[in-house]
Amino acid sequence: MKIYEFPIAPNARRVSIFLAEIGLEIERVNVDIRGGENLTPEFKEKAANGLIPFLELDDGTCICESVAICRYLESIHGQSVPSLFGDTPLEIANVEMWNRMVEFQVMVPLLQAFRNISGIYKDRETINQAWGEESKQRFINALSTFEHQLNEFPYVAGDRLTITDISLFAFLNFAKVIQFRLDDSTPNLLHWFDSMQRRPSIVSTKT
Amino acid sequence: MKIYEFPIAPNARRVSIFLAEIGLEIERVNVDIRGGENLTPEFKEKAANGLIPFLELDDGTCICESVAICRYLESIHGQSVPSLFGDTPLEIANVEMWNRMVEFQVMVPLLQAFRNISGIYKDRETINQAWGEESKQRFINALSTFEHQLNEFPYVAGDRLTITDISLFAFLNFAKVIQFRLDDSTPNLLHWFDSMQRRPSIVSTKT
Repeated sequence: MKIYEFPIAPNARRVSIFLAEIGLEIERVNVDIRGGENLTPEFKEKAANGLIPFLELDDGTCICESVAICRYLESIHGQSVPSLFGDTPLEIANVEMWNRMVEFQVMVPLLQAFRNISGIYKDRETINQAWGEESKQRFINALSTFEHQLNEFPYVAGDRLTITDISLFAFLNFAKVIQFRLDDSTPNLLHWFDSMQRRPSIVSTKT
Repeated sequence: MKIYEFPIAPNARRVSIFLAEIGLEIERVNVDIRGGENLTPEFKEKAANGLIPFLELDDGTCICESVAICRYLESIHGQSVPSLFGDTPLEIANVEMWNRMVEFQVMVPLLQAFRNISGIYKDRETINQAWGEESKQRFINALSTFEHQLNEFPYVAGDRLTITDISLFAFLNFAKVIQFRLDDSTPNLLHWFDSMQRRPSIVSTKT
């Protein structure tokens, strides 16, 4: 198995942190997405979504989408105890709910803010600066839900670490690209982020 | 258990189709999202993401996010055979990959196109008409991946119906709000959509 990635991309980072948490090492292949290596027909033949990270199995089967990759790898590795996706149906639902909230309310506006403010991919997509600024504001507004949740629980989905914390960490850490850093206005998030930063899985995957 | 919903919203529709496919009937509560009933503190106390649909269990626990709701309900109902989420680790990964591609490449641009072109929620969010038009184009461009996949397989994730078909159907059906309808330029999608439209789960949940 190999993982194709671009290590500083937040979705590559969250897969790397996940693998470190479950203690699984896999060969990595670097893809130069800034240079457009993911835009070739050869790349799209492997990664149906045209994105990194993706996992290539020994028989050539490819799985893309970070969460699908993590769930698959945990499952074939001999599911972690407790699972980073939750164990009971209700726990699994709660983890999936919070992970999707991170993705749709934090990741989507963050990545749209980054691409539209920086214009990093202006060679391949239409840029809308005003939408970038609006997205940055929506990203910041979305954090209040997580600040509130972390006032009641030590981790995003409750009493223990799950994939949800890994997702939120990877995106908040990436948010420096839009000149955003957590501060005292969200003390629970700040405290949680500091604790996350000290985990071996985060230290060992730092780029 | 009760599902809080707004039946014509595409995420409510996909949960309804899913429930019809697994043969589960649940009490429904209508929420007037156009009138802002989801913006109240009482609503947000229940639905952490501030959105419909969400599931309220008899003990008051609430689960939001459509895919989390579907996975939970299939699981407690006595998992369908075969499961609409896939059965083996590889099948589960493949279904999740395609379902997420529907969400990030079709749903996200479609909903951003709808909200920014129509201005339907201009009482509560900043509208960017140019981003709406750009999103409509991205939505249309994204369909080529699915057209290609349906040239090789009868269903989006392969040889049988999964949640992925339900998701894609609900969003393509909703796309009439941005004056989009499938036509002969994507014959495989058109054929698949016509077959989906004849399923009892689709007919019985028509709004």
